[in-house]
Amino acid sequence: MGDATIAAGKDCIFCKIVAGEILCFRLHEDGDTLAFMDVNPANPGHALVVPKTHAATVFDIDADSLAAVARTAKRVADAVKAELDPPGLSLYQANGPAAAQSVPHLHIHVLPRRDGDGLPMNWTPTPGDMDAIGALAERIRARLETTS
Amino acid sequence: MGDATIAAGKDCIFCKIVAGEILCFRLHEDGDTLAFMDVNPANPGHALVVPKTHAATVFDIDADSLAAVARTAKRVADAVKAELDPPGLSLYQANGPAAAQSVPHLHIHVLPRRDGDGLPMNWTPTPGDMDAIGALAERIRARLETTS
Repeated sequence: MGDATIAAGKDCIFCKIVAGEILCFRLHEDGDTLAFMDVNPANPGHALVVPKTHAATVFDIDADSLAAVARTAKRVADAVKAELDPPGLSLYQANGPAAAQSVPHLHIHVLPRRDGDGLPMNWTPTPGDMDAIGALAERIRARLETTS
Repeated sequence: MGDATIAAGKDCIFCKIVAGEILCFRLHEDGDTLAFMDVNPANPGHALVVPKTHAATVFDIDADSLAAVARTAKRVADAVKAELDPPGLSLYQANGPAAAQSVPHLHIHVLPRRDGDGLPMNWTPTPGDMDAIGALAERIRARLETTS
């Protein structure tokens, strides 16, 4: 397992973000999880939560790590609600090709919803405006810091 | 809070399912959570996991309860994969009107995906064939019993 984990980590964009080798708009971090903005936001305020240890899917992750990711997703969701108050919010986690899983490192989408946004479950990731994402990240991060 | 919790429970279809006042195709139960089939399946094998204690949304639930629901969702997802091996599987949790949350008692959808199923994030719940749902429930439940 060790070799497979290392190999996965070397090629994995989310492992590189966790390791600080790729920059991200960081929101929150603890021993087990990292939360950061999705730079291909389906809606404004779209964030991701990942386990720091590589696991491709819900079938590959251990239950304790998934529970930790869920706890962080709630924290981020609470902060997004407090700061942006969207009329809805979806937590979403995709596994496998039919679910259009985009990165093979488990991630929960914390996805603010807009009335009538008409999102398909398999939306097409489209790059967002980096300045706008960065500004939203600052607001959400500030909320997280006041509630931690 | 006590009165509000009780009032919510009295009018809540998922609280009634937890209490055994409404029948369901039960899959798995522990002290904190219940898993059962969605009788309005978006795809065959669609299951739900709920906390036994009423909480309307991710904003209302405590982190420990959400973690318990996530753990059970993984167990159910593992069993669905072992039994049905779908080409994808989505975990989905909706909050508020813009996310088309159908029942105001937090639930995680364990949703097998089909290639090209074209599901919208806000799908329209449509009653399924009860015999088919019951037969799938038996298969998934048998898997859960062998892995518990």
